[in-house]
Amino acid sequence: MNTPPPSERGTVRRLPQRASYEEAVIHSILDEGLVAHVGVAVEGQPYVIPMIYGRIGRHLYLHGASVSRLARQLAQGVPVCLTVTLLDGLVLARSAFHHSANYRSVVALGTAVLVTDDEEKTRALEALTDHALRGRWAEVRPPNAQERKATSVLRLPLDEASAKVRTGPPRDDDEDLPLECWAGVLPLRLLTLPPEPAPDLREGIHPSAALLEYRVRQGSS
Amino acid sequence: MNTPPPSERGTVRRLPQRASYEEAVIHSILDEGLVAHVGVAVEGQPYVIPMIYGRIGRHLYLHGASVSRLARQLAQGVPVCLTVTLLDGLVLARSAFHHSANYRSVVALGTAVLVTDDEEKTRALEALTDHALRGRWAEVRPPNAQERKATSVLRLPLDEASAKVRTGPPRDDDEDLPLECWAGVLPLRLLTLPPEPAPDLREGIHPSAALLEYRVRQGSS
Repeated sequence: MNTPPPSERGTVRRLPQRASYEEAVIHSILDEGLVAHVGVAVEGQPYVIPMIYGRIGRHLYLHGASVSRLARQLAQGVPVCLTVTLLDGLVLARSAFHHSANYRSVVALGTAVLVTDDEEKTRALEALTDHALRGRWAEVRPPNAQERKATSVLRLPLDEASAKVRTGPPRDDDEDLPLECWAGVLPLRLLTLPPEPAPDLREGIHPSAALLEYRVRQGSS
Repeated sequence: MNTPPPSERGTVRRLPQRASYEEAVIHSILDEGLVAHVGVAVEGQPYVIPMIYGRIGRHLYLHGASVSRLARQLAQGVPVCLTVTLLDGLVLARSAFHHSANYRSVVALGTAVLVTDDEEKTRALEALTDHALRGRWAEVRPPNAQERKATSVLRLPLDEASAKVRTGPPRDDDEDLPLECWAGVLPLRLLTLPPEPAPDLREGIHPSAALLEYRVRQGSS
């Protein structure tokens, strides 16, 4: 069930049966992802940089050192493309041609703007901190004035976003089904290992329940 | 130990101590990754698309349906940025400000060209197939003439590539060390689950040894 695509340029052309413009689908992929790949173009040359992000409602937030090239470029209001990809498995067909991957991805187009409102900046930093590990913001020392000044926060509206999803087994041509070749899916999961305390951690401080419960992060079942 | 950066625009500016221009470092990250995020700009608007890739020596190969927008754009010789990111862990500091991630990434700038030589195209398709699962190409039916025609293969030289790597525990400010807050690293690994046979797989066909041995894929130790 799809809502109409948000724009001409935001419409998935290749394998459109894999596309979705449903907000719930888009949000769930963004919430499960940990890293976004953010593209900006400078005089025709694209640059694609991995960044963490947070979501509040229909907005994504990015942050960076205020002095960084990327943060300064983004703050000028340039067009960006933010892509989040969850790799769920390798699809191994009997023919090389039908090899594929099971994945869920979101592509969001738009213009990022610098967040200047103090309260929005605080909520965005909270969302960025809690995105990877819910409840972490409440456990840590919040940013002081100097740290806030050194950090640029940018807001990207989710007005032009699309999701693309592939699931299921390989789809081989009928004439390849008799081949003596194993076919199926090799599922992939991003998992956590037990937390490793910092060498300078004081004795007697244990990971929070949230941290210990944070085990399986990504992967569709 | 770093070799000099390949170009002005290919130089890492932000946190340059994390940068490397060593071919061995760049190749090892590319070989461990499964998905690249490829950026192209169309009239100032960047598009970032997840793609699988393969490497032969100092060249990366991409492929796509010949009819796809992206393959056609790339084949025109436009500037691209190809980024591969391996997420190794969440770095949980005592202050929100010093939260980070352990990661290894490669950013490659350049111009992709369409591969027209038949033999190079075959070797590239082999590299693309074997990138995720070594030895798979030898097990499957190779592409026929029609499938080869439907597939565009593109070559991107690794002339302007840089790696960026963060490892190790959080680095908190001295005055935050007494805080009652757990600090350390939550390691992340991309792992495989047992292979799932296709519903139409003939009885008696078992996964190859390579497939069964393919267990732990990504993650620094």
